[in-house]
Amino acid sequence: MTTDRNQRHKSAMQRRKALVDEKIAQANEERGIVIVLTGNGKGKSSSGFGSVIRCLGHGYKAGIVQFIKGTWDCGERNFIEQRCPEVPYHVMGSGFTWETQDRERDIAAAEQAWEQAEKLLQDDSLHLVLLDELTYVLKYGWIEQQRIFDAIQQRPADMSVIVTGRAASKALREIADTVAEVGDEKHAFRAGIKARRGIDW
Amino acid sequence: MTTDRNQRHKSAMQRRKALVDEKIAQANEERGIVIVLTGNGKGKSSSGFGSVIRCLGHGYKAGIVQFIKGTWDCGERNFIEQRCPEVPYHVMGSGFTWETQDRERDIAAAEQAWEQAEKLLQDDSLHLVLLDELTYVLKYGWIEQQRIFDAIQQRPADMSVIVTGRAASKALREIADTVAEVGDEKHAFRAGIKARRGIDW
Repeated sequence: MTTDRNQRHKSAMQRRKALVDEKIAQANEERGIVIVLTGNGKGKSSSGFGSVIRCLGHGYKAGIVQFIKGTWDCGERNFIEQRCPEVPYHVMGSGFTWETQDRERDIAAAEQAWEQAEKLLQDDSLHLVLLDELTYVLKYGWIEQQRIFDAIQQRPADMSVIVTGRAASKALREIADTVAEVGDEKHAFRAGIKARRGIDW
Repeated sequence: MTTDRNQRHKSAMQRRKALVDEKIAQANEERGIVIVLTGNGKGKSSSGFGSVIRCLGHGYKAGIVQFIKGTWDCGERNFIEQRCPEVPYHVMGSGFTWETQDRERDIAAAEQAWEQAEKLLQDDSLHLVLLDELTYVLKYGWIEQQRIFDAIQQRPADMSVIVTGRAASKALREIADTVAEVGDEKHAFRAGIKARRGIDW
């Protein structure tokens, strides 16, 4: 019985391996990509930061611009500043827009942050640039969309870019190579559990 | 005109702030949570690792057990080993099951890895335990589901747990506080772009 089950498992896995190997053989274009992590579910920014450390773990360089979460006490920022001081890291000054309630101040802060992003997007020593929560900059129209798209599309060929944030536009999804839509199936916060340091920020 | 737009923005943001503040006031239970990151889209493991560094950035401790990806050259593992040597990190020995094609070897490797997970899940110095790709262990039935659920549910009250991997079961989603379903809207690989070191692994 066990032998049968093991043999069936082996056959199934051999077929699976053949399929995986065939798909790998078909994918042969080599270049950096644009990844958009969007949707209302948990884990988009964390995923961006996890990709940064994945990249650093192979000895590549990465850069980060963090839009929106400006003044918030932020675990991933503390970590990168403490343990990865070589990573260029720029933070948009003003913080959540519903905290500032001042559109002109938001625009000025976004402009400054985007100028830093443009520099990173021209730096061919970088394997990855994380533009954390950039979707809100587009959504609120703080920076002209074409200017953002130009900088992303004119980046060095080997550079990948990760854009995170809710409500990525159709246009942004179109210029991306990979889009993950993170669905919010269930959230502790809605069940009355307080947002938690080290987990939610 | 601009003044009008700015005023409208300010009013909208004031309403939004009131809403956000009200929701925050309603969520007042404080405890560690179970987060499941599932679906076929990109970024689940990265999100788990990003949460680990978020946690470390606040001075909390975290532990990791990585199922499935055993022998694969892995940027996030290199990184944690190099820069976060204090983090307990266990890797399941056998690697992708379609590579080993040997069910009994997979079960033995899963058993060893799960024993390490059980130890972490009892360690009340840990703020977060990442069980990366645990869903496959459940899917293939290598470890009894109840044994896994018991260890997760009997953990210290302040500990959070993140489980990643495709195809999380209904039962796993039920014991979770937060579930993100990562949809695979678009993937570079399907457009013929080769998987990339530092981005895909």
